[in-house]
Amino acid sequence: MLTIAVDAMGGDLGPRAAFRAIEKLLRKQKDVGIHLFVEPDWRDEAEQTLQRFAPRFRVVVCGQSIAADEKPMVVLRHREDSSMFQAIDACRRGECQGVLSVGSTGALMILSRHLLGVLPGIDRPALATRIPTRGRPLLMLDLGATLSATTCNLVQFAVLGVAWCRSMGTEVPSVGLLNVGHESGKGTDEIRGAHQVLGKCMPENYAGFFEGDDLYRGELDVMVCDGFTGNVALKTSEGLTEWLTWMLREELRSHWGLRLLLPFWRRMFRRVHRQIAPSRHGGALLLGVDGVVVKTHGKSDVSTYEYALQYLLRQVQNHDRSSLIEQISHAQGVIA
Amino acid sequence: MLTIAVDAMGGDLGPRAAFRAIEKLLRKQKDVGIHLFVEPDWRDEAEQTLQRFAPRFRVVVCGQSIAADEKPMVVLRHREDSSMFQAIDACRRGECQGVLSVGSTGALMILSRHLLGVLPGIDRPALATRIPTRGRPLLMLDLGATLSATTCNLVQFAVLGVAWCRSMGTEVPSVGLLNVGHESGKGTDEIRGAHQVLGKCMPENYAGFFEGDDLYRGELDVMVCDGFTGNVALKTSEGLTEWLTWMLREELRSHWGLRLLLPFWRRMFRRVHRQIAPSRHGGALLLGVDGVVVKTHGKSDVSTYEYALQYLLRQVQNHDRSSLIEQISHAQGVIA
Repeated sequence: MLTIAVDAMGGDLGPRAAFRAIEKLLRKQKDVGIHLFVEPDWRDEAEQTLQRFAPRFRVVVCGQSIAADEKPMVVLRHREDSSMFQAIDACRRGECQGVLSVGSTGALMILSRHLLGVLPGIDRPALATRIPTRGRPLLMLDLGATLSATTCNLVQFAVLGVAWCRSMGTEVPSVGLLNVGHESGKGTDEIRGAHQVLGKCMPENYAGFFEGDDLYRGELDVMVCDGFTGNVALKTSEGLTEWLTWMLREELRSHWGLRLLLPFWRRMFRRVHRQIAPSRHGGALLLGVDGVVVKTHGKSDVSTYEYALQYLLRQVQNHDRSSLIEQISHAQGVIA
Repeated sequence: MLTIAVDAMGGDLGPRAAFRAIEKLLRKQKDVGIHLFVEPDWRDEAEQTLQRFAPRFRVVVCGQSIAADEKPMVVLRHREDSSMFQAIDACRRGECQGVLSVGSTGALMILSRHLLGVLPGIDRPALATRIPTRGRPLLMLDLGATLSATTCNLVQFAVLGVAWCRSMGTEVPSVGLLNVGHESGKGTDEIRGAHQVLGKCMPENYAGFFEGDDLYRGELDVMVCDGFTGNVALKTSEGLTEWLTWMLREELRSHWGLRLLLPFWRRMFRRVHRQIAPSRHGGALLLGVDGVVVKTHGKSDVSTYEYALQYLLRQVQNHDRSSLIEQISHAQGVIA
């Protein structure tokens, strides 16, 4: 049986959304166990909702959770009793095989590195997610773990992305660098540096510079960028999708003839939504950590949690530590 | 009569798109003159298309145009004969009141600073454009002139944005900083520094940190970010809009009942398109330069050129140098 740790503290909508999603998961998947980490106030509600799934389900009551803007030193020294620390530590001790957290990305990064360590050859883990595109899904990293990335960070992100895609079955994944132009002189020093290294050392994988409007074309397997840019690009996409959907609905409501066709719209919107909904890619993987850690969106609702839990389960099932390490060491060998 | 300089070299679709747009403009606006700067190969076609508008229209034949990845030193020392250099220089000499260029952003920035200078109190100009949102339009800057912005750059961008909005009639423009979270501890050192300065010195304008999904909410007048992030966010939006529009069209074509309603769709799509089309915000302003310089998208087609020309004309008509300088010096006074 696979057991996963869920840190449900810190989301904008509170842990109740997590309870509902866990209930659905435990009802559907009989071979999965959940350890839920919450503050004392939420113990009773969690047990009322989920205790019937024991012993597959367990509530672990923790102390103060981590605030969004807490300093790294405070997180490491004074939050050992928090739900996030305890959830990751359960993974370290081998009681769980993966962690899902809705808490602060910064804290998750620090605690994962501290408790689980990083894979050999990697300096900093990256936050990665697969976004839907016109063609095949695109693994985008980093999404906020490393705000300013050095050349070395960017190269390692490319190596991590390629290694992960290989471990998921893509034989020769293609990887691009997100930039402000396609020409080799464009971009910051860090990006131009990474362009040179990748061009020399991963010629079969590296496809060059790409711009923001290439993201959704579906021509790549991996897109590498610093965490600031990735975070803004992904959230901008969410905001734009929301606005466009709203605008289309308003247009459809504005005409009686179109209102008559509402059932058609609903079906159509549902199909489109299924392809692009942010909740579908709400689960992001902390790639490079020596363990399976998934961060879900701070604004997670029940459906986002559901997808994130499914995403984590798939990651745990497909996790092949030795293959990842082998891929990384191979790439590092070529680079060095 | 207003005269504007058009540097038509360097666009992905060639200068022909510019000729058509200029023809439409000159036909509609009798009080506007155009000086068109092109390479010798294009002289005959330009004259054939547009010579009938003389003396309002003039072709200036130039030497080698500037390549997209040319080094700043090469641009400054060896491209005095290029269309971009000549167009900006016509502005410096007072022959034209504004410049439109489709060429390299980096070169445009360097040459504009070199030939026109910057406004007193500003270190680096910013590339700014007004994007459509759910509410009022949002002036976003920088979009690629300063890839890595210091705290001081970001503060100056905010000052420039606010000053420009005031000069366009908004009495108390609100300005936000684009970040990876709303909390004060989030972001890079540069952004947190700018947050502190703006909070102290422009309390009536500064509205705090905003995330990517806030861009299209329409709650702000100005959004400040470094040029790398702004460039990627804007181009990502263009790519996503293109994909979503394509997906909806495919959905509508997939069902015979929906195909019957094509005239409705067309009208609806046209209305939505009018609100969001990238060509509508294809014109970006080089804010902080001592003159009126507009950069249009490298992928500009006829309609993009048309909007960019209209945008430039409005800028030239509304340009109030002394008011801008006064606003900047006022803000700098508060900050210092």
